[in-house]
Amino acid sequence: MSRLLTTTPAADGFRMPGEFEPHSGCWLVWPERPDNWRWGAKPAQAAYTEVATAIARSEPVTMAVSDVQFEHARTVLPPEVRVVEISTDDAWIRDMGPTFVVDGKGGRRGVDWRFNAWGGLLGGLYFPWDRDDRAAAKVLEVEGADRYRAPIVLEGGSIHVDGEGTVIATEECLLNPNRNPELSREEIERTLHEYLGTEKMVWLSRGVFDDETDGHVDNLACFAEPGKVLLTWTEDEGDPQYEISADAARRLEAATDARGRSFEVVRLPSPGPIEIAADEAAGVDAVEGTLPRRPGDRLAASYVNFFLATNTIVFPLLDERHDDEAAEILRTTFPTREVVGVAAREILLGGGNIHCITQQVPGER
Amino acid sequence: MSRLLTTTPAADGFRMPGEFEPHSGCWLVWPERPDNWRWGAKPAQAAYTEVATAIARSEPVTMAVSDVQFEHARTVLPPEVRVVEISTDDAWIRDMGPTFVVDGKGGRRGVDWRFNAWGGLLGGLYFPWDRDDRAAAKVLEVEGADRYRAPIVLEGGSIHVDGEGTVIATEECLLNPNRNPELSREEIERTLHEYLGTEKMVWLSRGVFDDETDGHVDNLACFAEPGKVLLTWTEDEGDPQYEISADAARRLEAATDARGRSFEVVRLPSPGPIEIAADEAAGVDAVEGTLPRRPGDRLAASYVNFFLATNTIVFPLLDERHDDEAAEILRTTFPTREVVGVAAREILLGGGNIHCITQQVPGER
Repeated sequence: MSRLLTTTPAADGFRMPGEFEPHSGCWLVWPERPDNWRWGAKPAQAAYTEVATAIARSEPVTMAVSDVQFEHARTVLPPEVRVVEISTDDAWIRDMGPTFVVDGKGGRRGVDWRFNAWGGLLGGLYFPWDRDDRAAAKVLEVEGADRYRAPIVLEGGSIHVDGEGTVIATEECLLNPNRNPELSREEIERTLHEYLGTEKMVWLSRGVFDDETDGHVDNLACFAEPGKVLLTWTEDEGDPQYEISADAARRLEAATDARGRSFEVVRLPSPGPIEIAADEAAGVDAVEGTLPRRPGDRLAASYVNFFLATNTIVFPLLDERHDDEAAEILRTTFPTREVVGVAAREILLGGGNIHCITQQVPGER
Repeated sequence: MSRLLTTTPAADGFRMPGEFEPHSGCWLVWPERPDNWRWGAKPAQAAYTEVATAIARSEPVTMAVSDVQFEHARTVLPPEVRVVEISTDDAWIRDMGPTFVVDGKGGRRGVDWRFNAWGGLLGGLYFPWDRDDRAAAKVLEVEGADRYRAPIVLEGGSIHVDGEGTVIATEECLLNPNRNPELSREEIERTLHEYLGTEKMVWLSRGVFDDETDGHVDNLACFAEPGKVLLTWTEDEGDPQYEISADAARRLEAATDARGRSFEVVRLPSPGPIEIAADEAAGVDAVEGTLPRRPGDRLAASYVNFFLATNTIVFPLLDERHDDEAAEILRTTFPTREVVGVAAREILLGGGNIHCITQQVPGER
């Protein structure tokens, strides 16, 4: 059961916890659409299975699967993964799933944002997106969590919170005219605070170079803990990512959070430019209205796009020259967690990474 | 999560409890197919909503709903009913859902019978039935109950147990060549005992007259408690139901149960012949392969087809001349339960009644 609420989380004393706070579980959605995932999504399904398996070592995992793929998913996923039927348009639960909020007194609820497939008719990634927009409510029914239907278009991957009043996001995404063109920056800030239980917004400028999400913050930067931000980084001045990351560092280092703290910025190396190979562009259905897959296009690869599970960091293996260095920084940053790398290039080909395909359920109720 | 088991309930120390034992909840499936439910299933949805609402006063109710009807069902059902997406072919979870078994030591599992839509290609009620056959596994995932896949075709409504070793069923249904033609009566008995944890089978001959399920026992007779059976009854010797009920009474009164007890047979009056009215046959899609709806056809109406909830009896109102008498007998039979009548003619038009559209989850684990 999940009641539709007409108040706001902040008014009801709820807040979104930091991802680093304990979880009671994690949701994913099984990939299947053949116009985004090559070869009938079989390689992507193998990658998602690896991610789910790695997270399940830390916390209960639920995989949402269409009726058509249900038997196959149930058969290939480990038995400890719960499989439930939910119809979706693609497999990015970070963005179209609910954002959970808690009150520290036994209450856990969900925010169901409006979803328009990363830009609707102005550069959105597919059409239609109605099943994705309806999926959060279904997740909340299974979780038994009441639902706030937020009045703005927002993807979960376009925000990060420290759980103590601070939210970070990029102007490129949240102020993009393809999301909420009728709202001012101040109105968007106010709405976020109402639905996340935050008070202080720190705006970064742009997300990772050529990110088809219009610059989601979760591919650029994330909170390791309150006051500490991991930022994707390159020393290569010839890489267009250089100025994006430098600007983000400058903004973070000049800002303070809701508690008045300065930010410590931990630089996580970018894997450098990764391009779609010719064979990686093959096996994808051609459908008008979805992003074409072209050899030579740059992928928005970033180690920041990891899932911060209760006892584990599940991070994407992206490039042999940088994977070890990224793992080492993650181990230093999260000394109490096991750091597990999963081959993630197949997920990256679909347009995101491990953080984009996961959604945590807070442990505190 | 739900693991597929390759043993049997009996071998693992599990048994199906009687329906009169405490429940932890009840499942239903939202009706929608327009070739079975008139006027786009809107009248049937109203009736199912009444049934769900009545049961929810006693125990948690979950409604399984297709993606297409999800929003509507969520909106019209009371907020305390949990709504989850599950694709089905129709709305009879008694027959295609799981049969739960328990071990009295914290274990609760499900039996997933093979399902062929009440007869497959030999008089089955629709084609295809693959989504119905896959639904039990999905229910068990949500319930977190491991799954036995039984090797026989069986509908949950074709058996009743007393929870103490006895199972009753009709020969008309279980020995029908459209279910398990390759199995002898003894093989069917043995398989039932293995999957229900029973030891003694009491065979009745035929089910209610003109019942399109091929004579499900749950429309004819049920256990009120161990040793006590409610039987649909008519004193009208001109009604073909007369000889069916008389034969069932004779067989029951001559038999003993697994514990060696004789049966007390409580006669519940039949509402008498109820026929499909002309306006009740209208508004149904004509589709080859589904049962046509013809004015004047007799409906298999029976007060025995009630749901035995933990604190409530939800029984079908069928005929003003008999409803009060049926209610009175139910009150006497179940003195600790509230007896609630729900207008059920619309469900009857679809081919069954309240017991057929419900499936209890035992409270004992």
